Amino acid sequence: MAFNPLITLMTDFGTCNAYVGAMKGAIYSIHPEARIVDIAHDIPAHNVQEAAFTLLGYYNTFPERTLHIVVVDPEVGSARKPLYISTENYQFMVPDNGVMSYVLEREEIERIIALDQEHYYRMPVSPTFHARDIFAPCAAWLAKGTADSNSMGETLDKCQRWDITKPKMLGGKLIKGKVIHVDRFGNVITNITQSMVDKIRKAQGSAPKVILGSKEITEEVTHYAEGKSEVFFLYGCTGFLEVAANKKSACQLLGLEVGKDVGVSF
Amino acid sequence: MAFNPLITLMTDFGTCNAYVGAMKGAIYSIHPEARIVDIAHDIPAHNVQEAAFTLLGYYNTFPERTLHIVVVDPEVGSARKPLYISTENYQFMVPDNGVMSYVLEREEIERIIALDQEHYYRMPVSPTFHARDIFAPCAAWLAKGTADSNSMGETLDKCQRWDITKPKMLGGKLIKGKVIHVDRFGNVITNITQSMVDKIRKAQGSAPKVILGSKEITEEVTHYAEGKSEVFFLYGCTGFLEVAANKKSACQLLGLEVGKDVGVSF
Amino acid sequence: MAFNPLITLMTDFGTCNAYVGAMKGAIYSIHPEARIVDIAHDIPAHNVQEAAFTLLGYYNTFPERTLHIVVVDPEVGSARKPLYISTENYQFMVPDNGVMSYVLEREEIERIIALDQEHYYRMPVSPTFHARDIFAPCAAWLAKGTADSNSMGETLDKCQRWDITKPKMLGGKLIKGKVIHVDRFGNVITNITQSMVDKIRKAQGSAPKVILGSKEITEEVTHYAEGKSEVFFLYGCTGFLEVAANKKSACQLLGLEVGKDVGVSF
Repeated sequence: MAFNPLITLMTDFGTCNAYVGAMKGAIYSIHPEARIVDIAHDIPAHNVQEAAFTLLGYYNTFPERTLHIVVVDPEVGSARKPLYISTENYQFMVPDNGVMSYVLEREEIERIIALDQEHYYRMPVSPTFHARDIFAPCAAWLAKGTADSNSMGETLDKCQRWDITKPKMLGGKLIKGKVIHVDRFGNVITNITQSMVDKIRKAQGSAPKVILGSKEITEEVTHYAEGKSEVFFLYGCTGFLEVAANKKSACQLLGLEVGKDVGVSF
Repeated sequence: MAFNPLITLMTDFGTCNAYVGAMKGAIYSIHPEARIVDIAHDIPAHNVQEAAFTLLGYYNTFPERTLHIVVVDPEVGSARKPLYISTENYQFMVPDNGVMSYVLEREEIERIIALDQEHYYRMPVSPTFHARDIFAPCAAWLAKGTADSNSMGETLDKCQRWDITKPKMLGGKLIKGKVIHVDRFGNVITNITQSMVDKIRKAQGSAPKVILGSKEITEEVTHYAEGKSEVFFLYGCTGFLEVAANKKSACQLLGLEVGKDVGVSF
Repeated sequence: MAFNPLITLMTDFGTCNAYVGAMKGAIYSIHPEARIVDIAHDIPAHNVQEAAFTLLGYYNTFPERTLHIVVVDPEVGSARKPLYISTENYQFMVPDNGVMSYVLEREEIERIIALDQEHYYRMPVSPTFHARDIFAPCAAWLAKGTADSNSMGETLDKCQRWDITKPKMLGGKLIKGKVIHVDRFGNVITNITQSMVDKIRKAQGSAPKVILGSKEITEEVTHYAEGKSEVFFLYGCTGFLEVAANKKSACQLLGLEVGKDVGVSF
């Protein structure tokens, strides 16, 4: 039997309706031996930014050739294209809305295909549900080994990609960054990486402090339970600086949200 | 090896307790090779109407002979019977509470069996948890190929079924319907179908308007991102007319809920 | 092929981020044929007590040798050890935080291993994400049959275990217990078992009443839909006395929460 890659699903469909089920059924009806893996279906509705950051957190933990489907797709039915993207080790099916932006900071694109061949669609295609009618069947045909991605549409030379806001180094002693995610525990994740902090720490020979508005956070720990202060900071599982609280929500304690400025000074 | 159908699970059990896990364990302990598919476990508690409409949205995307289990079962333990129902292409295990009503608008029943043979139960049966003790083991024996549905209980000639409220045509120029579902995005789904609207549109030669109380909605689109007005309407993935807003909740904007009257005039 | 046990996952990670996906990917990347089963990912954040009670509700419905992973782990990264525990019929991977306490009331420990062999870790280990970097890979190697649990670390002679508060019998006519869980439906589950109630019922020859503060509940039923009173009591699917309401939340009606006193008098 041909190689049967895992197919992962991340969506903003929620878990109180038929949408996830319909997508799975559309895959299985073409490829009954499909190996589908649920990632998360409660991504905030329409929030492509959250989906992009979430994808970064799991895509490369999977075996090579895994096919990651991400459908957070407020432009469904419009001119935005449904895409197949391959990198050296992974495959993706996503709407062309920038959701690959974080991943493409770390991966080289091998091929981009616009999934424009109706032959592989579930017909008639609903203009409001490409997950069921385009992404699911294309993924199923591909994973089943019946079709090659090259036959599924035109090759493109690029896809939508935002400029990921990078933290700025100011005067060799200050890093200015942003909050990019708040997780279920209220941990506040920034775009400042451990390697940036360590580099300046080494150069300056002094300890970092996190600056949030008028608040300074000085306690740096390695894990949550170590924290003694109301809020403290550490480096989370994807290498980004996080502000956290011990068994409490740092987000609530500090009144933070995605997009707020965060500084690290030395 | 015998045919091993997919077993799908839709429940109102939520995802913060043991109920879904116990049901899966009860299936696997009989049929370790079972192929279980999660549909949705956050159906509003006790809401059989929501479960019935949700089932309509995915049951026929699955391969033939898939066994769909739906447990939204406020009458669990009472005289209501646990049922096996087969149609030409699908199998269902459901409490006899009307949850098949939407599906049976589209499917012919082939056989109804009351799952009354204790031989196939997980004993002792908890009167509060037939999902674990009746539906799961009966499904497992059936999917495993060890038992035939005929041996699982008495054949019945009918099951509970509501009159699905159908929209009314008034004077050839007005359709009166109802809101039947609000999805995670706040899209408001009605029981008025695209084919009804198109039929009158053709006869009248004029454009439809959606009437919600004193509000008239005139913008008709094919997909959400196309909408320019605060709220607009389109036809969703199961063919029903939906009132929606572009990246906003039409339900919140309009203060709607399931059961409200909706009109379409020409 | 070697025996390939089911691997079940219960966490407090939620379903709106990458954590569950990263854990699954870490398993599959080592053991592509892993058979992963989602139990529940919305256990209240950091609530080890809820996880422990939830585990009791499903662990023994699964086939023998199933490997249950439970990660509700507020002390992640601290000195608390990641454990492998086997009982006669089941295997567990859990942080050493007491989460086995309910299960160990019913099961004898066969072996406890501290998962301290980095050889089986995903490196570098994040001090905030042992689910991905320790539990997932250790489970994968074990389920794959490549490694034996004995090789994964030092054998311990005990693990963290709370005293499970047992109800008290007073004067042969009163049972004093506690609320230990409220489920999604608002059913209020106590630590008083049906067998305790039945024993006194038999001895006294009189009917039990549930005492909640100044409220007495006298209606005893076998299933929810049977209840006629505003609130009533019955014995739920794990054998514990529950206070419930018919299609309503008993928890809300009574203003109860976990930890509150409950009495049964005769």
